[in-house]
Amino acid sequence: VNLTWESMNFHQGQSHYRMDYLARTANSENRFLACLIKLLLVLWIGTTTALAAFSIEFLIRYLSNFKYAFFSNLLSHGITRFRDLTNPLALILAINGALCGLAGLLGVWKHLSVGSGIPHIKAYLNGIKISGLMCFSTLVSKYYGVIVSVVGGFPVGKEGPMIHLGAGMGAGLTQGMAPSLNIYTNFFRQFRNDLDKREFVGMGAAAGVSAAFGAPISGIIFAIEEGLSHFNPTTLFWLLICSCQSFFVLNLGKSYENGSFGDMSNGGLINFGKFSDASYQTVEFLIFVAMGVCGGCFGALFNQLNKWITTYRSSFIQSKKSKVFHVLAISLAVTNLAYYSMMVVPDCKPRAKDFNPYQMQLYCNDGEYHAGAAIWFATPENSVKDLFHAPVNNYNSSSLIEFVIVYFLISVFTYGISISSGLFIPSLLIGAAWGRLVGIFLQLYFPAMNFGDVGKYALVGASAQLAGTVRIYITICCIMMEATGNLTYAYPIIISCVVATCMGNLFNEGIYEIHNNLAGMPLLAWTPPKGADKVQVSEICARPVICLQRRMRVKEVVDILENCPHGGFPVVDPPEEDEIGVNQSHGRLRGFMLRHHVVQMILAAHLEDKMDEEVSWESYANVYPTQTDIYEIYVSDMLKFTGYLDFSKIMDPAPTTVKPHQSLDYCYQQFRMVGMRHMIVVNDLFDVVGIVTRKDLYRVT
Amino acid sequence: VNLTWESMNFHQGQSHYRMDYLARTANSENRFLACLIKLLLVLWIGTTTALAAFSIEFLIRYLSNFKYAFFSNLLSHGITRFRDLTNPLALILAINGALCGLAGLLGVWKHLSVGSGIPHIKAYLNGIKISGLMCFSTLVSKYYGVIVSVVGGFPVGKEGPMIHLGAGMGAGLTQGMAPSLNIYTNFFRQFRNDLDKREFVGMGAAAGVSAAFGAPISGIIFAIEEGLSHFNPTTLFWLLICSCQSFFVLNLGKSYENGSFGDMSNGGLINFGKFSDASYQTVEFLIFVAMGVCGGCFGALFNQLNKWITTYRSSFIQSKKSKVFHVLAISLAVTNLAYYSMMVVPDCKPRAKDFNPYQMQLYCNDGEYHAGAAIWFATPENSVKDLFHAPVNNYNSSSLIEFVIVYFLISVFTYGISISSGLFIPSLLIGAAWGRLVGIFLQLYFPAMNFGDVGKYALVGASAQLAGTVRIYITICCIMMEATGNLTYAYPIIISCVVATCMGNLFNEGIYEIHNNLAGMPLLAWTPPKGADKVQVSEICARPVICLQRRMRVKEVVDILENCPHGGFPVVDPPEEDEIGVNQSHGRLRGFMLRHHVVQMILAAHLEDKMDEEVSWESYANVYPTQTDIYEIYVSDMLKFTGYLDFSKIMDPAPTTVKPHQSLDYCYQQFRMVGMRHMIVVNDLFDVVGIVTRKDLYRVT
Ligand SMILES: Nc1ncnc2c1ncn2[C@@H]1O[C@H](COP(=O)(O)OP(=O)(O)OP(=O)(O)O)[C@@H](O)[C@H]1O
Ligand SMILES: Nc1ncnc2c1ncn2[C@@H]1O[C@H](COP(=O)(O)OP(=O)(O)OP(=O)(O)O)[C@@H](O)[C@H]1O
Ligand SMILES: [Mg+2]
Ligand SMILES: [Mg+2]
Repeated sequence: VNLTWESMNFHQGQSHYRMDYLARTANSENRFLACLIKLLLVLWIGTTTALAAFSIEFLIRYLSNFKYAFFSNLLSHGITRFRDLTNPLALILAINGALCGLAGLLGVWKHLSVGSGIPHIKAYLNGIKISGLMCFSTLVSKYYGVIVSVVGGFPVGKEGPMIHLGAGMGAGLTQGMAPSLNIYTNFFRQFRNDLDKREFVGMGAAAGVSAAFGAPISGIIFAIEEGLSHFNPTTLFWLLICSCQSFFVLNLGKSYENGSFGDMSNGGLINFGKFSDASYQTVEFLIFVAMGVCGGCFGALFNQLNKWITTYRSSFIQSKKSKVFHVLAISLAVTNLAYYSMMVVPDCKPRAKDFNPYQMQLYCNDGEYHAGAAIWFATPENSVKDLFHAPVNNYNSSSLIEFVIVYFLISVFTYGISISSGLFIPSLLIGAAWGRLVGIFLQLYFPAMNFGDVGKYALVGASAQLAGTVRIYITICCIMMEATGNLTYAYPIIISCVVATCMGNLFNEGIYEIHNNLAGMPLLAWTPPKGADKVQVSEICARPVICLQRRMRVKEVVDILENCPHGGFPVVDPPEEDEIGVNQSHGRLRGFMLRHHVVQMILAAHLEDKMDEEVSWESYANVYPTQTDIYEIYVSDMLKFTGYLDFSKIMDPAPTTVKPHQSLDYCYQQFRMVGMRHMIVVNDLFDVVGIVTRKDLYRVT
Repeated sequence: VNLTWESMNFHQGQSHYRMDYLARTANSENRFLACLIKLLLVLWIGTTTALAAFSIEFLIRYLSNFKYAFFSNLLSHGITRFRDLTNPLALILAINGALCGLAGLLGVWKHLSVGSGIPHIKAYLNGIKISGLMCFSTLVSKYYGVIVSVVGGFPVGKEGPMIHLGAGMGAGLTQGMAPSLNIYTNFFRQFRNDLDKREFVGMGAAAGVSAAFGAPISGIIFAIEEGLSHFNPTTLFWLLICSCQSFFVLNLGKSYENGSFGDMSNGGLINFGKFSDASYQTVEFLIFVAMGVCGGCFGALFNQLNKWITTYRSSFIQSKKSKVFHVLAISLAVTNLAYYSMMVVPDCKPRAKDFNPYQMQLYCNDGEYHAGAAIWFATPENSVKDLFHAPVNNYNSSSLIEFVIVYFLISVFTYGISISSGLFIPSLLIGAAWGRLVGIFLQLYFPAMNFGDVGKYALVGASAQLAGTVRIYITICCIMMEATGNLTYAYPIIISCVVATCMGNLFNEGIYEIHNNLAGMPLLAWTPPKGADKVQVSEICARPVICLQRRMRVKEVVDILENCPHGGFPVVDPPEEDEIGVNQSHGRLRGFMLRHHVVQMILAAHLEDKMDEEVSWESYANVYPTQTDIYEIYVSDMLKFTGYLDFSKIMDPAPTTVKPHQSLDYCYQQFRMVGMRHMIVVNDLFDVVGIVTRKDLYRVT
């Protein structure tokens, strides 16, 4: 665990000045108005998220079509004219390389825009502060980054980044300020605290899911499953509103694009198409379970390989320049592999009714097209749809096998390089391809059983593979149902997702957890670690505890702050002379001071003698989200030696305490469910004997 | 609030003997085996719930068909022969009356089988102990009660009771014993505690929803929304497994019934049919909102009327006999109203292709049938389906208006009488009828707008009415989507449900909350009451606190127990002479004893001098769920005057404490989220100054 990650503060304490502030402002607030403002903000988050998602999808589609038309042209001509592929390949490599290089540059410009964004959002919702994650430049980098990396031919999806963008809207539009743009207003002051901001981020993420997959319910489930732990029905309500709004705006946009403005039955940005004659039989149950097992194994393999590669990569590729070069190298490799693997397997099919717009002739005869090339050259979304719905003989099993292997490998290599890259679509694609293979083999070897549509197996395979990789199975079930608009297959999807998740969990963690762990983030899981009911808090808490006293000379305080990084300090009455060392106690607990409040006191020179005239809670609350540290301020010697600080009215007089012999199980639950940051361990005399933070709990898991 | 309701104990404390027990048993337990047993139990719960639901549905369908065939015959003959309806009416009244009387008798036999069961399950999941709720006889009474009351012609559904039955399976099959049947085994000891039992009850309820509506995802959402507050993904996992299993078994059963055993695409017991050409337009958005508003208002009106009637009824009808007579009277009224209202409105339609098997001729000409009668005489489920899908001119608007009014009134009167009666289907039926009316009027007055299918409005109306009544909107959205197998209408359904819930909440609470409140149950809502951040714990806690001391004479203990009903007592070191009365303190907190543990100590004569040889945690854990009270045991004078009890090794040494100036907001969250029962208020010296239980928190809401 990396000690530099800090937690968020969800509770602001009961300090004298805050209670005073609450009492002062109690009557001036208008509950109805507050609710209205929140409603408007939520609708606004939904709207902007949908617009962002819509424009990303539009740009990607437009640019891809352009690129594919160009390539297709080039390839057909190149092949027919020269029977030689070198020249067109060089041109394709150059174009893809340029786009991917751009993606790499955007990635190194803002390293928080790298990856799918979901691991970061997960950590954020879990309560870890990641500064810059939601700031404007990161979002810009993500927006353009995902466009160029998808168009550049990487095996990446745009859904993860859309969710990150949604979360960014949630954080950015509701604070009434944007420090990175130097915008400060007086609006929405009431939402400037970690608790409300986090709620908005959750809503934005839900809106992102809703827009990306056309799945409003999945949006809610995602927000719950991914970590909005201490949510309650009020939050559920706002989540629902926000994801509906996003779905609504997106549908409006799509209906406009389709030329039937106002017709609302368009679905989301991804639409996997309807399964017309959906049905299945009891015996297939076993097949679904088996596919779940495969999905879990493949997913676990994916995660393990990716973990090794990422670890290895992070020890070699560190400078910005080498990161960009690495992106370029991977891009070259991906394009080459795609190109040659398409050439290797002969898979010519007669050109039927135009199912897929990316049907290329390549070296096939006239009136035919290359079916293998269609998977490689369509956008991943279209390939998935095609694998679900194309007639059984549309794909050769050899080209599918080859596709699965190659695509699996390049996806493993791609996730984690310095570009913004979603994981959902690549996983779905891999799963759909092997799922379809399963279907083809079943039809081949058990023709008598009449198993029906191969698309069904593609669907189940896709769900299993995705669940095996990311392990958020309830969300995936909902997404697959909502994105196919089909509920008959609910049961197969659920079974395969559950089995895949369980199977995968036998081997390793989900890919998001792996990446968060590699970054040393102390995410707290929902459940206490196994056997926690036999461990006592005293075995895991940190001690000795660095404490403050209610009245202290500035110098002493500065010394303490400069010599430790802790985010908060218990305030105690010092033990009497003869008690020191006895019971390992640090004196009787009186309250708790957050580090940045202490620094703020020194900075504002809120000394003992002028407290009541000058100080008010606003001077502490209004600096949010800035948290100045002691190293950033200059403290004059005058102040240091003559000033006295009195914490009694600023500290939280009622911090949460726990007894040393309380069970870890219970302590963990309390900590996690209520969203605490510090828990003070006190003995029977209310003397401080230890302290528990997120990191202590994380260490024992 | 009724003080006799007790809470459940979700945490067993860290007492010396329990820690000892955990240490002793740590290695003997086999995690894999434990998991397997749980899996089998969960599958078993799902299976039995599905079978129960399936058989209820089957019996109801069979008996109803029989009854309707008989009536139909009778009416046609009666009318054509005598032009006189008196005789057949008398016969119908007699048959319905007999069935309803039986329902009433079952209801008074086990009063916990009365009503839909959902309010009780909700309270149970919230943490309130309702003894007998899950016992065998209650479930039997519910099973037969719902069959006879639906067949008897009451406007009630079978879905609520199915959910109750599912919950009962969860509790009954997993304890390895059934006190009401005098069955005690050694199996499943590990699940005999409130925490695990509650989890199983949640699963059973989810399985019930899944079976009743063919909606596995809704099952999970129901369990979450209805109160499994401190759930975590592990629970989600089991919920999913259980509701899938139930869906699976049900589908098997239905496929067998349909003659295609093994074909799994049958859906649930309710199937509202597919909407073929689903689509809608932006302007309709406003209509959906307006329908949401109507749904909210009608729902609130329903609740308010029902509340008045229930209050009034409960003050007049108290004896068992009068309850049964009341049921009979309502049955008479309902049958008469249905009968005459069907006769009043002439609504003859030509007999087309057989949409509805309950088409009766009555006084219509040959080749025609009475459309109004079809709503009245079909089972409610079929009527709902018909309202969703029948062609626009199938129902007369006048017969719909009349139906809505009459059905609304009889439903209001029926819910709360002494029969088992679900609310979902009646609400859906009312909503579908007025929703269809809206559709008909729109087509009539805005023919140019081309609003499409009237069934769409029936669907939206049904959702809005149900949400306006029961207010569990997310579950309802999911159920409507899963039961229609349609996701295009997701957005209209969500909008109308959300608006209806908000609208309804302006007027009153949901019908389940109303009934729980009337029963004085202290249910804790998810969120702290408004303004809770300005209230301090000291303002709401109970004081003075009755405490025990670590070592006490039996007589003193018995006196304390006999003179108060409290469920637990802080154990303190008594204050020194000169401190008494100072600070209102009761002495330093040392631990906490549950009342039934104290009684158990006395009963087993675990006296001070023979603790360590005789006592083990098992003697306290194994009596679960019995909690003997002091009034039920005889304590000899010998014991009283010479015996001493020592609580130090049995008490929980680390009860949760809170400071008097902590905010109510924070305290409430902790209490609710972690599932506590007692929270002890201590001052800076760790002296007990107050106590907070569920009832104190409930009082301030
Ligand atoms: N005041 C303190 N005195 C002694 N140890 C502390 C104190 N505060 C935290 N710790 C311990 O130091 C370790 C590192 O914690 P860290 O300094 O990151 O805590 P924090 O910054 O207060 O909390 P967080 O990082 O979760 O925001 C943990 O084991 C923690 O228990
Ligand atoms: N030991 C006690 N001494 C004094 N008051 C108590 C004590 N225990 C509970 N109370 C108070 O008595 C009132 C009634 O509570 P009740 O006796 O029902 O609590 P309980 O039975 O311990 O908890 P629950 O009913 O939730 O299981 C509440 O206001 C509660 O705060
Ligand atoms: Mg820290
Ligand atoms: Mg009580």
